[in-house]
Amino acid sequence: MLRVVAGALFLTLLATPAAARTVSPAAAAREWRVRHEREIVAEFDSLLAIPDLAKTPDGLQRNADAIAAMLRRRGVRTRVVSVPGGASVVIGALDTPGAKRTLGFYAHYDGQPVDPLDWTDPPFTPTLRDRALEDGGKPLALPAAGDTLPTEARIYARGSGDDRAPVMAMMAALDAMKAAGITRRSNLRFLFEGEEESGSPHLEATLTPERASLAADLWLICDGPLHQTRRPLIYFGDRDVAQIDITVYGPRNELHSGHYGNWAPNPALMLARLLVSMKDDHDRVSIAHFYDGIVPLSTLEQRAIADAPAVDTTLMREFAIGGSEGAPARLAELITRPSLNIRGLTSGHTGAQATNAIPSWATAAIDMRLVKGMDPAATVQRVIAHVRAQGFFVTDHEPTLGERRSHAKVAWLAARHLGLGAVRTPMDLAVAQEVARVVDSVRGPAVRLPNMGGSLPLSELERAIGAPTLVVPIANHDDHQHTFDENLRLQNLWDAIALMASLFAM
Amino acid sequence: MLRVVAGALFLTLLATPAAARTVSPAAAAREWRVRHEREIVAEFDSLLAIPDLAKTPDGLQRNADAIAAMLRRRGVRTRVVSVPGGASVVIGALDTPGAKRTLGFYAHYDGQPVDPLDWTDPPFTPTLRDRALEDGGKPLALPAAGDTLPTEARIYARGSGDDRAPVMAMMAALDAMKAAGITRRSNLRFLFEGEEESGSPHLEATLTPERASLAADLWLICDGPLHQTRRPLIYFGDRDVAQIDITVYGPRNELHSGHYGNWAPNPALMLARLLVSMKDDHDRVSIAHFYDGIVPLSTLEQRAIADAPAVDTTLMREFAIGGSEGAPARLAELITRPSLNIRGLTSGHTGAQATNAIPSWATAAIDMRLVKGMDPAATVQRVIAHVRAQGFFVTDHEPTLGERRSHAKVAWLAARHLGLGAVRTPMDLAVAQEVARVVDSVRGPAVRLPNMGGSLPLSELERAIGAPTLVVPIANHDDHQHTFDENLRLQNLWDAIALMASLFAM
Repeated sequence: MLRVVAGALFLTLLATPAAARTVSPAAAAREWRVRHEREIVAEFDSLLAIPDLAKTPDGLQRNADAIAAMLRRRGVRTRVVSVPGGASVVIGALDTPGAKRTLGFYAHYDGQPVDPLDWTDPPFTPTLRDRALEDGGKPLALPAAGDTLPTEARIYARGSGDDRAPVMAMMAALDAMKAAGITRRSNLRFLFEGEEESGSPHLEATLTPERASLAADLWLICDGPLHQTRRPLIYFGDRDVAQIDITVYGPRNELHSGHYGNWAPNPALMLARLLVSMKDDHDRVSIAHFYDGIVPLSTLEQRAIADAPAVDTTLMREFAIGGSEGAPARLAELITRPSLNIRGLTSGHTGAQATNAIPSWATAAIDMRLVKGMDPAATVQRVIAHVRAQGFFVTDHEPTLGERRSHAKVAWLAARHLGLGAVRTPMDLAVAQEVARVVDSVRGPAVRLPNMGGSLPLSELERAIGAPTLVVPIANHDDHQHTFDENLRLQNLWDAIALMASLFAM
Repeated sequence: MLRVVAGALFLTLLATPAAARTVSPAAAAREWRVRHEREIVAEFDSLLAIPDLAKTPDGLQRNADAIAAMLRRRGVRTRVVSVPGGASVVIGALDTPGAKRTLGFYAHYDGQPVDPLDWTDPPFTPTLRDRALEDGGKPLALPAAGDTLPTEARIYARGSGDDRAPVMAMMAALDAMKAAGITRRSNLRFLFEGEEESGSPHLEATLTPERASLAADLWLICDGPLHQTRRPLIYFGDRDVAQIDITVYGPRNELHSGHYGNWAPNPALMLARLLVSMKDDHDRVSIAHFYDGIVPLSTLEQRAIADAPAVDTTLMREFAIGGSEGAPARLAELITRPSLNIRGLTSGHTGAQATNAIPSWATAAIDMRLVKGMDPAATVQRVIAHVRAQGFFVTDHEPTLGERRSHAKVAWLAARHLGLGAVRTPMDLAVAQEVARVVDSVRGPAVRLPNMGGSLPLSELERAIGAPTLVVPIANHDDHQHTFDENLRLQNLWDAIALMASLFAM
């Protein structure tokens, strides 16, 4: 603590009016951070150790409480709000006398489900490693006070990249600004929610009563990864997501594949046929009307895609794939189109548990990414109509034995996480361009893309608050978000602290 | 024990030459059994409690030792033989002075893998129930000595139906014959193996040195279920089985379906397409040359199929399916054709563990049932050629990252359990017809089918021993063999004891 105070004093001395003109907020924040890596990582570690899964609501509440305490310690006016059945939303406000604008900063504290067996380190035992696991990363102790970590050091934990890193970056930026005497020029609003990975089902209802207190010129959504080249990135929108689980049925019980193989319908094959019917040989979704209503890309948006660095070849090498869907179109363009992805398949048994049996059912978990102009509920109806058109009797419940006896092909479809649709903020919106220039100033020109491939509650925020949104991510692209061994490259956290300080000071 | 001795004395008194002419071996065995249900079930229970899984070789050895002890207690000359790496085979011989023929009796003591989570009762805690679980069966205690069990009582345990029931039936038949003074007229040979569910890979090598001691006019393979009408059944052959695991690959790690969905190849869809390519819309296997070389059914065999009772409609109701593959052809005919069955599918995650990610790989476990004239090794080669023809780079090992980078579509194919081909014993073979008439005499006319749908080591036995084979099953058709909640209906055991006594006396 003494050391922190001493550092703050030292920087306060530096931050005379003359020095303030020559040292940018980003540089001052970096200077401060270099001497406080231990404290920053220790505080981040405490946050990451709190389970952040939808299935453990008290873990979510502990996250909200911890973040509220972090804000309050830094003098931010903080409230925790919620609606029945919804997770807590932490709201913070920091007013600035004479502010010329108000900027909002959003992140979420909940993470995707985990299968702990897949993880190298337990998902809620944050583990420092000197580099990525893929590169042979070894465990690392916290640095001594004042010492720095290796450039490629990472911290492994669920929610480290997606999306508790921005929380920590904002907190450290506030510390750095105070210590270095960097002046804020905007009113700041903060918002941390706990249901993003579940599709933010209560966000609009929770925020609507807060509309006045959350009013802003622009809300910055700090989520998602940077560009694969490690260049800064700004997304002007997102894709919406809808999930559908499809289960098809064979015999009531698994049956001996010798005695009944060739006669009892095999649900795994039935499911394979259904899935194949959903995409043509060029990987275009062949569900009728799937692409109806899509808003075409503007000239500015098309140009932005053309200007984005090509990463396809590098990524193919990194991910060890010998081809890409939709080629020759590039990734940057493909994510402006909708997708239909099989998240998982389960039927019978494979591996050591496999028996010579005909499975009783087969399930596919699907997610669809929808672009601006597509209506999520209508899209789900089109999927249901498609399954019916393949000859299935479709239910919205686990089918009864009577239903299974009465139809040769039965499918149970369960749709989830229907959002309000995708957003694309116009790329020429003035306040968005101002923010983009600040991003450029911190670590070089940012790649600008019309939308991210992932999904954020942009529609929900825009509808509840009535302000435009812009996505400003900070995590490394190879952070394993949504899968096991999620991590944050600490250099990304360091850069984000400098970025947040610059944005808070704009 | 006293009671057993007393019963034996009583029956010995009955079995005067005059009585022996009026009481058939089956009737005498039934009479004895009714008074010894407790002892029979208790001994069976001890056997079933021994785990019988390929993954626990010491459990297999304990089965072999227990069975050898059971035989020796009954005066059967017994040896336990094996080859390196193979499970023990128990061989028994009971010579009969002046025998006019030698009959062999085969069963296996190993069971299919279990997933204990699926089971109502633990698979190796044999549990008596008053009827089938599907009909609300409740746990039942062992009957008191001399008491009988309800007609639909079942015993639940892995290996209860498939295939330790015949072991117990043969032992009890020997007891009944001794107690009732029933005369044997053939030499008997016994053979109990422990690798049937693994494709009997060491059986031929283990038995070849035993050729002389196992020589017989006919080997009766006591495995598989009775007819679905509960009528006795004789199969004159089997289908062979070959397993193939197919794994196809997407990105090295699971990837966020938003950032990469539409671009990174989805292995689940790739696998679905591959599986669909293997069967046409009429469920006929569309792998080139798959049906080459099949020996057509003889007129006798065709007539046997036509004579078999139709069970399709009843089974569809029982299994809660609204259609059957290959209709309008009936089950009895369809199992004389080869099949290709998807045993299981696994990719990514489904249900509560599902994340919005593109899976890294997808696996299908497949089994094929091959009929007489198909060469198992050649069939596997045809599958491999088919996968190649779909554009896959095929490996026989987990592909390296380099291989995955160099090919858009990579599949790892692992074939297992290649047998020596299917068997169909001519339906007019004299000794087989004699056995069939004895079967008819015990519980009414047996259904006769050219082959069972399942797979048995008939080829291996025929090649090692040089004798023809006939399949005489005893288990109920609804015994859940190869899946969870395997069971034996005890009435089937009682009938089998009468049948074995009749066969031993023929």
